[in-house]
Amino acid sequence: MTQIGIGVIGAGYMGKAHSVAMAAVAAVFDTALRPVLEMICTTTEAGAAERARQFGFARATADWRLLVDDPKVQAVVIASPQHTHMDIALVALARGKPVFCEKPLGLNVAQSRAMVAAAEASGCANMTGFNYIRTPASQLARQIIAAGEIGEITYFRGEHTEDFLSDPNEPANWRTEGLASGAMGDLAPHMINAALALAGPIDSLIADIATVHKTRPSPHGAVAVTNDDQGQFICRFANGAMGALFFSRTAKGRKMGYAYDIYGTKGSLRFDQEDQNALWLYKGDAKADRQGFTKILTGPDHPDFKAFCLGAGHGTGYQDQIIIEARDFLQAIATRQPVWPTFRDGMLVNQVIEAARQSHAGRRWVDVREV
Amino acid sequence: MTQIGIGVIGAGYMGKAHSVAMAAVAAVFDTALRPVLEMICTTTEAGAAERARQFGFARATADWRLLVDDPKVQAVVIASPQHTHMDIALVALARGKPVFCEKPLGLNVAQSRAMVAAAEASGCANMTGFNYIRTPASQLARQIIAAGEIGEITYFRGEHTEDFLSDPNEPANWRTEGLASGAMGDLAPHMINAALALAGPIDSLIADIATVHKTRPSPHGAVAVTNDDQGQFICRFANGAMGALFFSRTAKGRKMGYAYDIYGTKGSLRFDQEDQNALWLYKGDAKADRQGFTKILTGPDHPDFKAFCLGAGHGTGYQDQIIIEARDFLQAIATRQPVWPTFRDGMLVNQVIEAARQSHAGRRWVDVREV
Amino acid sequence: MTQIGIGVIGAGYMGKAHSVAMAAVAAVFDTALRPVLEMICTTTEAGAAERARQFGFARATADWRLLVDDPKVQAVVIASPQHTHMDIALVALARGKPVFCEKPLGLNVAQSRAMVAAAEASGCANMTGFNYIRTPASQLARQIIAAGEIGEITYFRGEHTEDFLSDPNEPANWRTEGLASGAMGDLAPHMINAALALAGPIDSLIADIATVHKTRPSPHGAVAVTNDDQGQFICRFANGAMGALFFSRTAKGRKMGYAYDIYGTKGSLRFDQEDQNALWLYKGDAKADRQGFTKILTGPDHPDFKAFCLGAGHGTGYQDQIIIEARDFLQAIATRQPVWPTFRDGMLVNQVIEAARQSHAGRRWVDVREV
Amino acid sequence: MTQIGIGVIGAGYMGKAHSVAMAAVAAVFDTALRPVLEMICTTTEAGAAERARQFGFARATADWRLLVDDPKVQAVVIASPQHTHMDIALVALARGKPVFCEKPLGLNVAQSRAMVAAAEASGCANMTGFNYIRTPASQLARQIIAAGEIGEITYFRGEHTEDFLSDPNEPANWRTEGLASGAMGDLAPHMINAALALAGPIDSLIADIATVHKTRPSPHGAVAVTNDDQGQFICRFANGAMGALFFSRTAKGRKMGYAYDIYGTKGSLRFDQEDQNALWLYKGDAKADRQGFTKILTGPDHPDFKAFCLGAGHGTGYQDQIIIEARDFLQAIATRQPVWPTFRDGMLVNQVIEAARQSHAGRRWVDVREV
Repeated sequence: MTQIGIGVIGAGYMGKAHSVAMAAVAAVFDTALRPVLEMICTTTEAGAAERARQFGFARATADWRLLVDDPKVQAVVIASPQHTHMDIALVALARGKPVFCEKPLGLNVAQSRAMVAAAEASGCANMTGFNYIRTPASQLARQIIAAGEIGEITYFRGEHTEDFLSDPNEPANWRTEGLASGAMGDLAPHMINAALALAGPIDSLIADIATVHKTRPSPHGAVAVTNDDQGQFICRFANGAMGALFFSRTAKGRKMGYAYDIYGTKGSLRFDQEDQNALWLYKGDAKADRQGFTKILTGPDHPDFKAFCLGAGHGTGYQDQIIIEARDFLQAIATRQPVWPTFRDGMLVNQVIEAARQSHAGRRWVDVREV
Repeated sequence: MTQIGIGVIGAGYMGKAHSVAMAAVAAVFDTALRPVLEMICTTTEAGAAERARQFGFARATADWRLLVDDPKVQAVVIASPQHTHMDIALVALARGKPVFCEKPLGLNVAQSRAMVAAAEASGCANMTGFNYIRTPASQLARQIIAAGEIGEITYFRGEHTEDFLSDPNEPANWRTEGLASGAMGDLAPHMINAALALAGPIDSLIADIATVHKTRPSPHGAVAVTNDDQGQFICRFANGAMGALFFSRTAKGRKMGYAYDIYGTKGSLRFDQEDQNALWLYKGDAKADRQGFTKILTGPDHPDFKAFCLGAGHGTGYQDQIIIEARDFLQAIATRQPVWPTFRDGMLVNQVIEAARQSHAGRRWVDVREV
Repeated sequence: MTQIGIGVIGAGYMGKAHSVAMAAVAAVFDTALRPVLEMICTTTEAGAAERARQFGFARATADWRLLVDDPKVQAVVIASPQHTHMDIALVALARGKPVFCEKPLGLNVAQSRAMVAAAEASGCANMTGFNYIRTPASQLARQIIAAGEIGEITYFRGEHTEDFLSDPNEPANWRTEGLASGAMGDLAPHMINAALALAGPIDSLIADIATVHKTRPSPHGAVAVTNDDQGQFICRFANGAMGALFFSRTAKGRKMGYAYDIYGTKGSLRFDQEDQNALWLYKGDAKADRQGFTKILTGPDHPDFKAFCLGAGHGTGYQDQIIIEARDFLQAIATRQPVWPTFRDGMLVNQVIEAARQSHAGRRWVDVREV
Repeated sequence: MTQIGIGVIGAGYMGKAHSVAMAAVAAVFDTALRPVLEMICTTTEAGAAERARQFGFARATADWRLLVDDPKVQAVVIASPQHTHMDIALVALARGKPVFCEKPLGLNVAQSRAMVAAAEASGCANMTGFNYIRTPASQLARQIIAAGEIGEITYFRGEHTEDFLSDPNEPANWRTEGLASGAMGDLAPHMINAALALAGPIDSLIADIATVHKTRPSPHGAVAVTNDDQGQFICRFANGAMGALFFSRTAKGRKMGYAYDIYGTKGSLRFDQEDQNALWLYKGDAKADRQGFTKILTGPDHPDFKAFCLGAGHGTGYQDQIIIEARDFLQAIATRQPVWPTFRDGMLVNQVIEAARQSHAGRRWVDVREV
């Protein structure tokens, strides 16, 4: 049994999720490498110590460089704010340490490219944190498509819609400034990653992006919102299929609207993360009077399900996605083989977002490969 | 009790639906004008006679001009192929007869404009046949929006997806040629009409249109498909809201995918014609821990429902939509007041389609008002 | 073309529905016999005249005996209050006239037996009005079961739940008195009929029946409710399958909860009238990782659908069920062959209700065949 | 920070789930007591050692008495076969150790009563493992009912249906013998516990129980199935409400059919574990034309959700329920206050099952309080 010392940077929502995942993953999946919660880092020493106690880390720090340099920290999970990702990753990789980095990988495509270059040069395991695509249902969707069961994809519709900023009276906060925390920066990555994973590369797109509520209250009066509330694009995939993607944090009523409809020449798929344990499959070759969408409840016959529960329909949840990510990160380290989605996959998402921004600015179709 | 002689041109699917509607509407709605099924017209004399017998018309003809000229025919329903709409309508209006014309109104915006001009000059009642918007659920959606219950609309997503040509081995037929019978010509009108009715005028759009299956088998070998299988556009409405519309006849598994999601500043609406008796409403002002989409089953408290059944959830269907159209047409005639959707409303739909075609051809945003 | 004069007794909700159906059925189904709306009867001469005008009947009366005796009335539809069914039916049958009678057939099993005896002795067409089982979806369920697709039935759960008397402040009305208008008398018949049609004869049952709101307001103060608000029983079918049926008019939120789940050795079915255009089918022989309930949208490949609309998912509604009943009644008359459900089928439903009442009174299992 | 040594007996499905829960719970909930995985017990020494390694326990044993006696084991989780529950619990309680015992508590009501007596005499924390009622959705249902939001309950329908033995060719196994592993013994406890928690005590019931597939293949030919495949009862709750409960392991297509419909005088609730992150609420006081069931997606405003994820709709799963149980067990130990559901609550479930068995045998209504 080989242990591996884990350092987690960031102790907010995602830092906690990754910490819990590292505590649980070996028992859930009987991984070859078994995490030891070595050190956690957050903004203050006191806060870090408190989180270390709660999450079960041996040590704590407020200086990520200490964590990255620590000899007992053998792998690094970056769950800190987006503008810190690149710096941390570059140092960790320079130290020869595997890095798991939350999405979006870099603040922009240039940062992400630098991270990819460093990761690939280092030979270290590197992954980007796209957790929603890890549900058994979305993994099953990928399998069904790969097996040709729905034929050639002809249309892909995806959305990532939530409503946490739908109320115009919601005060300004860190989410209402900075491109990486707007709808295009914060929500689009998940669904763009899904689109690429499910329907393949995007060739070209035309986008429209908007700030729905242009100012928000603050203790100092109304302040301008400096990033986008919603964005969308239509596109063509490399195989010729059409696509349409929509991202919004003002989609009233949508709580986790990570959803896709995929039409193919032989069948189709529908999924909505708000009911994450079901995948809807339509097979065109069914008898005419018995056709319809079949609601497949994920179960032990589907990817990564039976580690969590033996009965179909018993259900996995958000935290389980993070545990699956942890399993994959440990496996990438143990086997020294890249495991999807790597930093490169994270960078490809930045590239599409960048293309969308250029398209919106120029009101024109943009070739994604030229961004 | 005032009777009115009805002539129906076309005895296929829609001709039958309108004939049944005219036979039932007075009993259902106790209309002021009571239809007499005076004459039906289809391509052959024998066919017309046979249909007259089945549908209960007094007389039959294979010549639409005879029908239009007949003094006992006091109102005309056009349910014949799309290329015939304008000629028939112009003659009927010239005779001073009210005209109900199936969608798409004309083959293109020029034809539709001619029809609007003739209709408005004549002073005759004129309506375009957009039946799906007549369900109690979609009428309720319009009421909810008009009452401001979901606030200002911020996003509209609409689709009209079916799969009747999703199989590449489906032989070429009349639907695979002629722009008016492609996805943009045949399916788009319904959902564009819905978008205009629900979210208001469209200012600008950018579209992409494609023929998924470029040839189809025929008795003479593979022949080219000369119209589109699917099309989509993103747009901005006059109020600034974003929109995305998609139309397809190759959307495997979708049978009547006339569906919309509408987000507003105070709430949202979701609807899918495949479950036409339900409208999903989300109200942002509900208590945080009791929020969610409410599935409203249409019932006697909703528009036009109780004429068909007294109990909520008992359900109306496709034929009932046509009966509601007949009621409105009779009312427009009786009251000499326009009833929505008039020819002008039909023309506005052609205008958006034309804008989409120009946009696709030019790969650019198009101002709809300039088309 | 043979016409047949129709007399309808009752001009309320059901009388209207049958009148509309008789006006539309020939056009919809091209029936061999074509109804002529000859006479309608309701409680006052003025009311009858008014309804005749609206529904399109040639004549009106307030005396059902006049209608039944009228030589131009060749078939009788009974849609009047339940306590009048037997008397009218017996006279009509004695005149040799076919009778369609709304459910419940008689007030009790004794009345229904008398009606069956008269009907069978007369040789006249006779039918009982169970409309909900006529949807394309429920007809498809019957086909699937008959074809053995779900194997031997092992469990049947049915309910007919509505909430029109769920509010204790709803005043007393005709529905709150008389056993035939309580939940067991008024709602149970539809679902018991469905159970018999779908799962076969019921051998034995044990029931529990209750009045939830024991008094209701009236202009004269609180008055006692003299019939039941809800009832249920568990049972064994002749094939050994277990069953559970529930009927309620106080099931808050349920508007048309005519719903069943049927489990068999090879598959299962689920249906809810609130989404009447879908039937959910599970096939046990599907591949383990592709199993699930398939939502079959009714369409032209299913029973009686294509007369109303050509596209799957376009949907039929409540009124269409009544048109299907009219088609069957005309066919029974034309062919002189019984068409299900006959008076005998209506009587079998009364028998189960009677068994349930005896069981409730005696707090014991009752053998239905001995009632 | 106070640690507590945990011993888990049983290393199968449930043993794993509880082990993972104990590893994760402190990080998830920041519990006052922090579990140390001290020892695990399963049938062989080698197996126990292997599980200890995977799950992260310090030590392993094949003798549960050693585990219970071990001074470092300060609390015991019983996840071993049902016939072992009582013996283990009695010894552990005699040693003054808190016990969490999987359902069903004892093999029968007599065993459970002995366990309750021992637990209550010992003053030790004691809980029964009903995990499904721990979802945020079902906890919310309890809150809504307790707050009177749906008024007085008038009807409760519950089922726990699965299909793992629906195929008659599925070989005989340990589940097909022993009353505690049949549908009534294995599935009924969860839903009976839900019924008691949601609708209150059951006064009386009448049951029917059956073995659908009476023999099953085995290596030695067909063998008799000695327990039940399905069972059901109708009942009256102490408040007068009617109930109906159904349990089946042969309900084709149902994977986790733990579902309930609850009707009250002011509203109603619907839930199905197959979509465990949604609770459907109907409020009778909504405006007539805006009424309907609201699909509440569980989120941070609902019980125990935000420890797992901050966004509504992001979803919890099966493993999370077990973590919630662990939190409660630790809290009961730390606070020395009983936490629902205790052994007594587990015993009350046995009592209802026993009443159902007596009712079935005697074909009569049974007063639950007299069992």
